[in-house]
Amino acid sequence: MLIVMKQDASHEQIAAVVKVIEALGYEARPMGGRSRTAVGIVGNDGAVDPGRFVGMAGVREAVPVSQPYKQVSREWKDDRTVVELPGGARIGDGSVTVIAGPCAVESREQILEIAQILRDMGASALRGGAYKPRTSPYAFQGLGEEGLEFLAEAREATGLPIVTEALEPGLVELVADYADVLQVGARNMQNYPLLRAVGRSKKPVLLKRGMSATIQELLLAAEYVLAEGNPNVILCERGVRGFDSASRNILDLTAIPAVKSRTHLPIMADPSHGTGLRTMVVPMSLAAIAAGADGLIVEVHQDPPSARSDGMQSLFPVQFRELMERAGTIASAEGRSLTPAPETSARI
Amino acid sequence: MLIVMKQDASHEQIAAVVKVIEALGYEARPMGGRSRTAVGIVGNDGAVDPGRFVGMAGVREAVPVSQPYKQVSREWKDDRTVVELPGGARIGDGSVTVIAGPCAVESREQILEIAQILRDMGASALRGGAYKPRTSPYAFQGLGEEGLEFLAEAREATGLPIVTEALEPGLVELVADYADVLQVGARNMQNYPLLRAVGRSKKPVLLKRGMSATIQELLLAAEYVLAEGNPNVILCERGVRGFDSASRNILDLTAIPAVKSRTHLPIMADPSHGTGLRTMVVPMSLAAIAAGADGLIVEVHQDPPSARSDGMQSLFPVQFRELMERAGTIASAEGRSLTPAPETSARI
Amino acid sequence: MLIVMKQDASHEQIAAVVKVIEALGYEARPMGGRSRTAVGIVGNDGAVDPGRFVGMAGVREAVPVSQPYKQVSREWKDDRTVVELPGGARIGDGSVTVIAGPCAVESREQILEIAQILRDMGASALRGGAYKPRTSPYAFQGLGEEGLEFLAEAREATGLPIVTEALEPGLVELVADYADVLQVGARNMQNYPLLRAVGRSKKPVLLKRGMSATIQELLLAAEYVLAEGNPNVILCERGVRGFDSASRNILDLTAIPAVKSRTHLPIMADPSHGTGLRTMVVPMSLAAIAAGADGLIVEVHQDPPSARSDGMQSLFPVQFRELMERAGTIASAEGRSLTPAPETSARI
Amino acid sequence: MLIVMKQDASHEQIAAVVKVIEALGYEARPMGGRSRTAVGIVGNDGAVDPGRFVGMAGVREAVPVSQPYKQVSREWKDDRTVVELPGGARIGDGSVTVIAGPCAVESREQILEIAQILRDMGASALRGGAYKPRTSPYAFQGLGEEGLEFLAEAREATGLPIVTEALEPGLVELVADYADVLQVGARNMQNYPLLRAVGRSKKPVLLKRGMSATIQELLLAAEYVLAEGNPNVILCERGVRGFDSASRNILDLTAIPAVKSRTHLPIMADPSHGTGLRTMVVPMSLAAIAAGADGLIVEVHQDPPSARSDGMQSLFPVQFRELMERAGTIASAEGRSLTPAPETSARI
Repeated sequence: MLIVMKQDASHEQIAAVVKVIEALGYEARPMGGRSRTAVGIVGNDGAVDPGRFVGMAGVREAVPVSQPYKQVSREWKDDRTVVELPGGARIGDGSVTVIAGPCAVESREQILEIAQILRDMGASALRGGAYKPRTSPYAFQGLGEEGLEFLAEAREATGLPIVTEALEPGLVELVADYADVLQVGARNMQNYPLLRAVGRSKKPVLLKRGMSATIQELLLAAEYVLAEGNPNVILCERGVRGFDSASRNILDLTAIPAVKSRTHLPIMADPSHGTGLRTMVVPMSLAAIAAGADGLIVEVHQDPPSARSDGMQSLFPVQFRELMERAGTIASAEGRSLTPAPETSARI
Repeated sequence: MLIVMKQDASHEQIAAVVKVIEALGYEARPMGGRSRTAVGIVGNDGAVDPGRFVGMAGVREAVPVSQPYKQVSREWKDDRTVVELPGGARIGDGSVTVIAGPCAVESREQILEIAQILRDMGASALRGGAYKPRTSPYAFQGLGEEGLEFLAEAREATGLPIVTEALEPGLVELVADYADVLQVGARNMQNYPLLRAVGRSKKPVLLKRGMSATIQELLLAAEYVLAEGNPNVILCERGVRGFDSASRNILDLTAIPAVKSRTHLPIMADPSHGTGLRTMVVPMSLAAIAAGADGLIVEVHQDPPSARSDGMQSLFPVQFRELMERAGTIASAEGRSLTPAPETSARI
Repeated sequence: MLIVMKQDASHEQIAAVVKVIEALGYEARPMGGRSRTAVGIVGNDGAVDPGRFVGMAGVREAVPVSQPYKQVSREWKDDRTVVELPGGARIGDGSVTVIAGPCAVESREQILEIAQILRDMGASALRGGAYKPRTSPYAFQGLGEEGLEFLAEAREATGLPIVTEALEPGLVELVADYADVLQVGARNMQNYPLLRAVGRSKKPVLLKRGMSATIQELLLAAEYVLAEGNPNVILCERGVRGFDSASRNILDLTAIPAVKSRTHLPIMADPSHGTGLRTMVVPMSLAAIAAGADGLIVEVHQDPPSARSDGMQSLFPVQFRELMERAGTIASAEGRSLTPAPETSARI
Repeated sequence: MLIVMKQDASHEQIAAVVKVIEALGYEARPMGGRSRTAVGIVGNDGAVDPGRFVGMAGVREAVPVSQPYKQVSREWKDDRTVVELPGGARIGDGSVTVIAGPCAVESREQILEIAQILRDMGASALRGGAYKPRTSPYAFQGLGEEGLEFLAEAREATGLPIVTEALEPGLVELVADYADVLQVGARNMQNYPLLRAVGRSKKPVLLKRGMSATIQELLLAAEYVLAEGNPNVILCERGVRGFDSASRNILDLTAIPAVKSRTHLPIMADPSHGTGLRTMVVPMSLAAIAAGADGLIVEVHQDPPSARSDGMQSLFPVQFRELMERAGTIASAEGRSLTPAPETSARI
């Protein structure tokens, strides 16, 4: 439930509402909006009687939140969440943010080289896995902390903020020491201890939709992060499991408007995993932007055929350049623009 | 197999190839391309030895067609198929063709009124079902031939060519007497007698992808039509069955590049059935265009809440106007344009 | 709606109810049950007021049918439907009926030989396609009417009733002249003109679930047949489209209890199409029986590797013998038995 | 690759093979079989030349393992793995093992009462979640360590070994201190750090198939556990995500024969999560046994309507009694029997 205060409600009146909520055994979360304050009741509040609040001084109304998710809902917060990255990129502000990079950090040279290429072509952030979740235990599992160090070096050199995956709760702090955005992969969308751990971090979280997760399940996963106090979640559609080998997955772009109508959080698309085929990445990127996505996360490698993972779906740099040009054109057709590349001076 | 002739091959040399094919018990299909002729072997030709043709006078090469589909493949025909409609619309020529109209023809007044509205807003063709496949036997099944007459009247009044569904082989001729394009619905994608019947018609065919059909199955369904001699097939992605009730179906836009890389036939998208929700139709229409679709088929009703079928997914006219404007902008961002509305003088 | 009469209701009282229904513009369908008569209102009767019937002489109650399907529902008819075949097999009476045979009739010799083998091993009916729906237009499409004649000859020789597929409305009468059961295949589950045509036939109908059809859609497809006056429908689970190439389809046995709780119609399982792999047919057959299926329809070929279609999923005769033995054991564990093979004297 | 030794190979010959493998930079894993020893090469051994081993003293052959999984494959180990539980149950020895219990441990009284009921009705082990993965952060998350203590007490009282879920790597040791079998849930099937952690434990692992995991992905997840040195993995089919709300999931019994043909590990079925509906649990349990499952894991609650989670799919005790009776009958029809309940004296 959300207790919406009157515009001119006083601090004392808000505090009184908080007190009642806590007396009922729930947690109160006061939130200041553009024009008014609301106090959310966190927890499974099905049994709370709205009548308890209506009539209290300064209370305009008590709004039951009809969805199982609360803090991620548009009922709870009407303003769109904008996630800011070091360097100035603002994800969710209407611009189209492009995060690009290799599937995995393979070596110092590789990540430094590709980061520079992507920086020059206009990417807003650098992706790259240091810890890789791999279907087979015998596949390359990433460079680990050394990979994080190379990523940090690439940031130092290019100013690009770093997006990289955290695979387990125990490593979240370490990854957060290096990363600007913590990625939670599709396989971990319902790894609740991990969600709680990134929820306790101060870094923004890029949360990918699970292989066959419903929109509601995705939003509830995000709710885990917000419930721990981290409001900076970027959702990401990355393809759902389909029945046709013509593509690795079905990039479900209906998720974009479905998510936007339910939550204030931004949503990006990952056309690389969403299709699994290099030739589909550009058209599906453009489609995602046209559908309203707040940005893209795209795999690019300086030499895809020799990539240690996901080579089939990684773009050649020249294809990424084409993507950026066409993405810019599509965005401006809709009155939007690509998020500007970071100021070099903006690096940490 | 495809026997590709040299550029300067003579009629006699082509005839000799045809003769050999027929002597082997297969059907030969000579096809003139932009710069050369090729002779296709129709039928299950797995056992034919290419060596039989290599070395014949005028023969450049014998190309095995690696896919189970043949005539629809890009190996068979390199030029993109352009389907022309009365009034001048050319589907597949690079422009974006918008077919619009109600789910079902409900009355003379209804179809005449909406046709005029759509004509004024720039639609290229009018859709409307006279025979409706309905999940329940007790649901409205369409007006039948009377509906076809109303459609013809709407064409007379507006110049818009008519796209309407044929449900069974025995009615194809009747429907073709009125329609400009014969629609085969998703439920009938593998109704082979119907595919053969529309294949024997002279009218273009709009073939919708089945609920859980693979791209290969869709192309093989089209092959049935071409194998009967009708080359004018427009494919249509209309959503596949998903697991999430957030949308009625998943509009699978990966099908657009997947189809385009395999066949010379044009492909449209149906965001109305593909999402089932009015609010998703505009974003998914724009996404389909950005993904490369040759056009859209969209449900519009003058009063969706009172529509006899599919009201939830039908646009209000004012939304269709917005769609056309934004579709035009997206198309031009990609160097394309909306197919112009038909010349009034072009009506039959 | 269903108007349930009192046990001692007179013919006049029933006639009076029928008259009221017809006066309201609906069709009335009186049905005698074991102990009482009920009169169903066919058509979309959402607006009919039950109060119109309550209080009429002889009326016990007016039961709204809550599902979109009516005549197939257990609310409409409580007794389980038993479909009788020539030769005495009764599908749905608690016994386990095994229909077996090749995918397609390939020649007179082939079908006569396999029919005799299956008869000797205890099959209750013979399946075999004369008209084959094939994904590719270049694949073997069946022998057509000649195939039907061979099937009839096999019936003559063995006493086994014939189950064969009708592909289009125009051929239903011809197929019904030869067949004892008309099969409607998965691809045609929503081919409504075909459903209506078999609904007008006097022969029982084996209706297969579509590739991605919900249980409700399956029941509504059956409703089309019943609505035309044919009460003898046997449903058949044949696998739904899955995402894993480990099997061709997922034989969805949850459909068996789901169907049984909703309808009085019998339901069989097709483990051949349901798995696509010979090695899975026996375990999944046993599983289907244990789940409560009223029988099996299984592909058997005297020489599967040389079968013209579906060889991968056809059993060798020796495997079919094993299946029959183990099926009998599982059935008797549940207090059931295999349907006895037909009396030879019972042939037509 | 697997280096298969001759029957009379000496220890020295085996040691020589191990030395060569290690010299090549791989890990060698010698495995004694019934009649011969084989030495497996663990790791991505694609580049190893079999010729390096052929011809060495005592080597019979070098078998490339064709699947991406190795140690779980039947090529690697031909004998079926039998997992023994305290109390004597042997999962995978041909008997049908029934694990039963509530979704979650709710209180000391609840778990002690239901454990006794299940013990008396013949269950072989007790399930119950102390740590619950819940879609919503506001749903009951389990009693944690206190729940583990209650489970241990229930084991003390009944002799039933305990099966309970571990949710994160950091808690595996704690859970293993109490549990006899560590469950890895469907949402965590690809939580690789967790798989590694249970792989380092000495306790058997019950690994559930993910919501839309292929059989190959399931086997590769098991490979993670074996690769860490824990050979005692029990696989579990628990339903895949479907498109029909008639059941919560599709219990995919084709997985049973598919798994059995590929691996030596035992596989159970979870008809409770697999269907989500109490009324389907008994028929699908019987079907799973008939399909060849090594056992069942079933949710039972003394009062399902008041269960704190999964009440819809939990059996009443009286239904569980019926299940056990019918399961026993089906098992014996196949020459199998239910795993006997544990000796009371066998408790720890």
